[in-house]
Formats: sequence, C-alpha cells, structure tokens
Amino acid sequence: MAAYRRDQAPWAEDGPPVCVVRPRTAEEVQLVVRACLRHRVPVVPRGAGTGLSGGANTVDGCVLLSTEQLTAIREIDAAERLAVVEPGVVNDVLRAACAEHGLWYPPDPASAPWSTIGGNVATNAGGLCCVKYGVTRDYVLGLQLVTGTGELVRIGRRTAKGVAGYDLTGLLTGSEGTLGVITEITLRLRPARDPERTVAGYFPSLAAAGHAVAAVTAAGLTPSALELIDRNALAAVDEWKNMGLSAEADALLLGRTDLPGSAGEQEAKALLACFTEAGATWAAASSDEEEAEALFSARKLAYPALERLGQVLSEDVCVPRGAVPDMLTRIEEIARRHDVRIATVAHAGDGNLHPAFVVPAGDTDTRRRAEAAFEDVLDAALALGGTVTGEHGVGLLKRAGLTRELPAPVLAMHTAVKQALDPHGILNPGKVIACAPRS
Amino acid sequence: MAAYRRDQAPWAEDGPPVCVVRPRTAEEVQLVVRACLRHRVPVVPRGAGTGLSGGANTVDGCVLLSTEQLTAIREIDAAERLAVVEPGVVNDVLRAACAEHGLWYPPDPASAPWSTIGGNVATNAGGLCCVKYGVTRDYVLGLQLVTGTGELVRIGRRTAKGVAGYDLTGLLTGSEGTLGVITEITLRLRPARDPERTVAGYFPSLAAAGHAVAAVTAAGLTPSALELIDRNALAAVDEWKNMGLSAEADALLLGRTDLPGSAGEQEAKALLACFTEAGATWAAASSDEEEAEALFSARKLAYPALERLGQVLSEDVCVPRGAVPDMLTRIEEIARRHDVRIATVAHAGDGNLHPAFVVPAGDTDTRRRAEAAFEDVLDAALALGGTVTGEHGVGLLKRAGLTRELPAPVLAMHTAVKQALDPHGILNPGKVIACAPRS
Repeated sequence: MAAYRRDQAPWAEDGPPVCVVRPRTAEEVQLVVRACLRHRVPVVPRGAGTGLSGGANTVDGCVLLSTEQLTAIREIDAAERLAVVEPGVVNDVLRAACAEHGLWYPPDPASAPWSTIGGNVATNAGGLCCVKYGVTRDYVLGLQLVTGTGELVRIGRRTAKGVAGYDLTGLLTGSEGTLGVITEITLRLRPARDPERTVAGYFPSLAAAGHAVAAVTAAGLTPSALELIDRNALAAVDEWKNMGLSAEADALLLGRTDLPGSAGEQEAKALLACFTEAGATWAAASSDEEEAEALFSARKLAYPALERLGQVLSEDVCVPRGAVPDMLTRIEEIARRHDVRIATVAHAGDGNLHPAFVVPAGDTDTRRRAEAAFEDVLDAALALGGTVTGEHGVGLLKRAGLTRELPAPVLAMHTAVKQALDPHGILNPGKVIACAPRS
Repeated sequence: MAAYRRDQAPWAEDGPPVCVVRPRTAEEVQLVVRACLRHRVPVVPRGAGTGLSGGANTVDGCVLLSTEQLTAIREIDAAERLAVVEPGVVNDVLRAACAEHGLWYPPDPASAPWSTIGGNVATNAGGLCCVKYGVTRDYVLGLQLVTGTGELVRIGRRTAKGVAGYDLTGLLTGSEGTLGVITEITLRLRPARDPERTVAGYFPSLAAAGHAVAAVTAAGLTPSALELIDRNALAAVDEWKNMGLSAEADALLLGRTDLPGSAGEQEAKALLACFTEAGATWAAASSDEEEAEALFSARKLAYPALERLGQVLSEDVCVPRGAVPDMLTRIEEIARRHDVRIATVAHAGDGNLHPAFVVPAGDTDTRRRAEAAFEDVLDAALALGGTVTGEHGVGLLKRAGLTRELPAPVLAMHTAVKQALDPHGILNPGKVIACAPRS
C-alpha cells in the first residue's frame, strides 16, 4: 500500500490507510463509500497521484479509493462536441481519442501524459493554454458522483447551456475529493485547432519581460500560450545542457498563437513586435514544428534540470498579470533572505507563477529554510492582490495559506458547504479546509 | 410599490411587500439584510425587473431590495482585462464603457439595453454570443455580497486563475438571489473584437435547417451567433410588417462570424456553404453593417410582433443541439394539441429554444391551455435529454419543471446548499427550490 500513500507534493504528511480499493464500476464506488459511511471511515480518492499539494495523500485509517480501473472513454460525440469518460482516463489518452474525431480537449496540465481526467476535475487543473481557453472547470458539463450520503447521482447536463438549479457541477470541480467521489465526467470539447506558431524572446531584465507581457495585453492579442522562464531556471538548464541560455538573459518569454491562416501570421508578428519593442535582446518567430519545439525546450527542460539538484517543490501562486515582474523580484529577495535556491517558470499571461524550491536530498536544514521561504512567497502573492494557488489546489500544503487568504466569514461559507454535502465528514477529511463533521 | 412587485414573467404569482428599499452602498444593503434577519422577514433582491421566470417577484411580507441606486462602474482595468461594477449597472452601459477602453464584455442577453449586471449574474444570463463566448458565469471573477447570516464578504478573485477553496463565485452566480445579495461584481473582459460578418439562409423545412446547424458543427466552425426563427415567428412578423418571410420558408437561420480578416471571410463562406448544401432556398453573406442588420431584422422583430397579439410568455428549454429540429416539431404538435399559438426563436447553435406562448389579453381559457402546453414543452425537452431552463432561470415558473428534471437526491443536494448558506431562509424564499429554513 505504500505506493498509494502520497502524491507528488514533498513535505506534506500522510497516514497509514486501512486498505486500498480499486473499484471497476460506479456501483462499486458507491458500495465503498457506503461501507465507509457505515463505519465512519474516511475515504480518500486518488487518480494518478500527480497532484502537487498533497490532496491525494492518505490520512490515518482511511480507505484509499483508486480510480485506476475506471478508464473507459464511454462516448465521444462530434455532433454535440462532448465526451463522457470515467475518471481514470489519462488526459493525453482522451486528447488523442478526441483528435481522431477532429475534436480537442484543451486543458493541458504539465502532467497530461500521466494525470487523469478525474484528478484534473478534482483539482480544476490548468495548463499552458488556459490563458486563451480557460481551465478544466470551463469544460465540465456534468458529473456522476457518489455523494457524502452514499447516493449515486448525476449533476449538470449534456446541453450547451443550462441554469436548472445551483451550479453543483462547478462546485464539485476543484473540490479535491472533499464533496463527492466522481465516477463519470461529461466534458465539453472544441473543434481541432490550427497548428500553433511560436514566438520566443530573451530579455535583459524582469522589468523588460513584464513590459512585453503588458504590451501583448494592451495590443488586444490573445496568445494561446505566454510562458516565462526566469534566469534561475535558465541557469539550471545550462548547468545540465550547457545551452548558454542564462548568460544571455534574465528572462525568456515564449508566446504562441493558434489563429488560423494569415490571422495567425499577423498575431505572431504582433507578438514579436511586442517582445522587440519591450527590449528583447533576441526574438524570433517560427511556424515550423521542430524549430518551435527547440524554442520551447528551455521550458520543458526546466523541471528535469531542477530535479537533478534535489527534491523540487513546485509552488503555484497567481497574481494580477501586471504584478508578475514585481512578484519575481520578491521571490528572488525571499530566496536570498532564506538562502534557498528558487527557480521560477510562470504562465505569465495568467499571472500564475511556479517558483520551484530545490532542496538537496536529506538536507533537513535547507528544507526548514525552504518551508519558511514557501510561506513568505504565499504572503508576497497575497500582498500583491493574488491567491495562494492558481491551479494546483489547496490539498494539505496550502491550508495555512488559505486561512491567510480568506477572512473568517468566507471560511465559514466554505465550511458550511462542506458540512452540507459531507455531513459525516468522511470525504477526504482534512484537505482544503479543516472541518469537524456535524455528526 | 406596485411597480416593484413583478418581473417580466406572465402568470407567476407575487405577494404584497412590506416596503421597497433602495440602498446606495453595500453597507446599506448589509443593514437591510441584518434588519430582515432580526425580524425573520424575507428579502427579495431586484435589478431592472427584466427577468422571465418570476425570480424577482415579491413574496408576501417581504422587503423588496432594489439595486437601482447601485450604479457605479468602479473600475475598468485594461491591463488586467477586468471591470468592477455595482449590481445596478445596465449591461449596455457597461458594454459602452468597456468599448472606450478597447475592451468587450461578451454576455448579451436580449434585455441588454435595460437589464442590470446584478440581475445577469443572479440568473447567469446568456445571449446570442454564448455559442462562442459562454455565459455570464464565464465572466464573473469575484463578488462582494451580503450573506444569509448578514456578513458583507468578498469571494472569488481579481487574478486570471485561482483554486483557493470551493467555487463559491460560480455557486452564487445563477442562484437568483437565494444564496446572498450581490453588492459588487468583478468581471473578466475580452479585447474588443473585429466586426462580425452575417450569413442568412431560408430553409424549406425544419429538418433542412437542422442539417445546416449540424453541418456547421461538423465543419469545425465556431460562429459567434447561430440563430433560428421558425415559421410561426416569421408569420407574426409578416402579419405586422408584410415582409413576405413566411411564404418563403419554414425556418430562417442567421449565422455570424467574428474571426479577423481573411479568416472571417473564409468562415462566412464556409457557413454559407453549410446553409446551401443543407438545402437553403436562399442564402447570402454580408459584412456590411446595414445589410447585416436587415438580415437580422426578422430576429429582432419577432418578439415585438408577437407582443402585438397578446401577452407573451417566453419559454427557455435547452436540448442537445442535434435535437433542435425534433424539439421544434414537438413544439408544433403541442401547439396544435392545446390549440395555442407558439412561435419559436432559438439559439440554434446552443440548442436553446425560446418558444413564445401568445395569449390574447383577458383570454383566461387560452391562458389555461397555454399553461398546460408550457408544462408539455418542458417534458418534451426533458425527454430529448434537455433541461427546463437554458438561460432564464428557475424563478417561480420552472419550479415544478425542476422537480421533474432533478431526481430526489440531487434536489436534496440543492436544498442542503441553500440551507447551509441561508440558514434562516430569508433570501428570496420560494424561488428556485422550495425549502424550509433550519431555524
């Protein structure tokens, strides 16, 4: 059972489960939840375990419910542009299946090759293309789930629109397994899009990169990705691959456009102009797939490069996009103050930053300093009008941050909703909000 | 006070309020709610009263809280692409203010010249452009509200992304004043878009029009509007304006595209090809604003044309888009069976139909037959996998329909949420769901 105890979040606690169950049907999920209800035993749902906040970590004495056997793609309906899937379907598998029908499921978390749609829904996962296409919640039409009282129900709809009652589907999405156990998901799809064009720019300062991002917004452009890699992440890639990235720049910006035909060509040119006018020391655009991949390689290599150096905790604050340069400066100050290595990759167009804390294996002293720096990063984001989590979720790691972000009467609303839908407190207890069961 | 008792829904009941209050600040709203709490008096929030389900109708002994004095546009931030407004701001007023900053607030209910953002949020209003750009909920980032326990709180965020706790903002959106009284709204905006091109087609049968809609989807097109006007609506316009529309066609389809430049030209051509190949007897495209307005005139004249003939109840079912022709056929059958005049305008691309029931003033017999037909239309939509309300909300008119749409355990989830956030049952009681207060 050890392999089922933790997700990918370092430092979050886990407790011994009483068993691991791998139901094959929604009805079996219901049986598990009903048994847990009868014995007042916590049930912790788990997808692929790629979460980054400890949301899927086991709690003491729980039943770990793995969705790994619930992998059916039930339906892909091109006429209605929707898919119906079981929660254990891997994101990239669904994406490939949709492509065969000329359709596209946009949400693209970095974990897409491994993470499951169920986990994506539970955490309301984001990704690179959210800047233009939104997050997982924007694609969830309906859910089948087992409730906190053991009922197997369907909520939401198959139609494009619908306002029949409260938006329970949106409420369950991002609830990290604390309001119900998802057994089936109905997803909205888009038509397949045109190939993307890529624009890259190296900037001599964070301020200049920030100006470029602001210029993109001011020009009314809607890139399909707008990523930033800071000098610390570039340096880590250089230490490994010796690409000479960090010598050239304080920040690398990567933009993409997927507008069709000449409109795409024009938007790529406009992105390039924004980069150049903001002071890029080098900038280039490409519609060639191989060339574009090369431009994006620093983005893709950043995490593996950091993981060579030790345990990596990927942080996830989100600030107003205009505050990105300021937030990056504050992160560097925090790293210096606590003497911790932090390298940042950011969905710059969304203001969503992923500062990565690197702690050499077994170095408990650095870990202590990193944990203090981690909380300082959350406070810095809140001071800039941001949130402690843009797309990874609260899980265990952000519970303290959440109580700093939300005032008491709002936390009380969250608690009231939790108690309303999980009156016996058996659904992934202790995650998101601490909350005593009503009975 | 009589002017404040009803919204635009015929046939829904209303009761005498004890008073009408018109607060000028959020703090005054809080005072009102707290006074109502103290005396266990219902509070019914009201925007412009353009609702179509009775959601803003007064209930016996309530305080009617009008947002008409809360009309400040607090902020339009072009760099963050957001606006902060008070609930009484009229949709078109906000739209115009955004345009001055090169920005666009997409949700465009037909009531946009009169309806308020607060009402749009309370009902999760849709409109013509939802088929491409989504509904009101997709644009609500955050809310300030007075809760059912009298607290003045902010929920949601100003950042592009955020998953700090449950999606209370999405939950409040569309809750029709039953979970909180909204005092401020933070809205996501888009950059101003290119001028639209319009495509119109007349079809000899509902089936042919249905084929055209399916062909648009199959071709991977994403029109910015796709509207259908049935022969009964065309006939009503003809009776008034003698435009010769209904002689030519069983249905008129109107499509729009807002892709920039040549991509837009290409999409308009592709729409035209879909219309023609599906059997349009006449079809044309235009990028000329005046010509496009002329093509759309039948859509705009349909309701006024019907209102000449009596009281009009605009229905709002939503079905899978492939079921639109079938639903239109069933509506005609229901009209014949109950001997009621029903004319339908539909957001065909969304499967959202607005059958309009026409009842001559004072004709109680026809009204009785129309009410029976109304419930049959809801049942027909449910039988086709649809919902009883696509964008108008449940209010009073759809409460019976809602209990036919949602199974008991799902209704129980709705009730639990209502009781959690409005424990004393003072917020717009009796709307959406019947629900006894916990205390």
